[in-house]
Amino acid sequence: MGRIERVELTNMCMICDGSRVLVLERKKNWRGVTFPGGHVEPGESFVASVIREVREETGLEISDVRLCGIKQYVPEAGTEQYDRYIVLLYKANRFAGEIKSSEEGNVFWIERKELENHALPHGFDAMIRVFENDELTENYWVCHNHELNYTNC
Amino acid sequence: MGRIERVELTNMCMICDGSRVLVLERKKNWRGVTFPGGHVEPGESFVASVIREVREETGLEISDVRLCGIKQYVPEAGTEQYDRYIVLLYKANRFAGEIKSSEEGNVFWIERKELENHALPHGFDAMIRVFENDELTENYWVCHNHELNYTNC
Repeated sequence: MGRIERVELTNMCMICDGSRVLVLERKKNWRGVTFPGGHVEPGESFVASVIREVREETGLEISDVRLCGIKQYVPEAGTEQYDRYIVLLYKANRFAGEIKSSEEGNVFWIERKELENHALPHGFDAMIRVFENDELTENYWVCHNHELNYTNC
Repeated sequence: MGRIERVELTNMCMICDGSRVLVLERKKNWRGVTFPGGHVEPGESFVASVIREVREETGLEISDVRLCGIKQYVPEAGTEQYDRYIVLLYKANRFAGEIKSSEEGNVFWIERKELENHALPHGFDAMIRVFENDELTENYWVCHNHELNYTNC
């Protein structure tokens, strides 16, 4: 059935405490900071998946999860095993517990305004505008003729 | 790869004009009213897909699309061709053009408070709480042992 796509489903959470945001300095693959998050398990609710990932990676129990947008990537046909890679973008301001680093990386608070002073993943600057701008709801990446472009809408 | 799920991707839009909402009285399958929406095309941006569906079904050009939540359905293993059926829930308050019905159904404005006086699809009452409550971001349906249940979170 043509209506069905092969999708890789993930989440990411921007946790704020006043003027600070929680970041994860990844130990695997590359050096730099990002927000906590990870894969949705088969059949899992999206909200449950982001609460679980934040707990596993940071030790915090978030309680006011709000969906603020979607990042997605549509690869060139035939180059990936999926048709779309989706990152559900959530925000949380309320949490319980103490931060605790895991094997995924070191977890710490930084001032939001300091974020751009750290090494960030490719495209993070475009995505964060969707997290922070209520008018934007999607960070849409497409690869076409070996060229990768994005639109925020 | 176990990370990839077979997903059917759709959208739905609650278009408001003051105290009124735009509804579509479907001609196919069943009688009753719902909000406009439909399938995401392969590779299409989610925001582009809801703008297109609203245009096709209602004649209106919406311009302030905001994601307000996600409805999803996880079927009993092996009973459907998909692992998840996702409905991306959007709201819009700004639009141009005149309403125009299509072969999908008659389109008309009703007072929001009259909505429950119309025949509505199964589960619409649960889903609309996600559209209208900023604390809720997901309407999650699971079928297990032939029993269908939902959680709003």
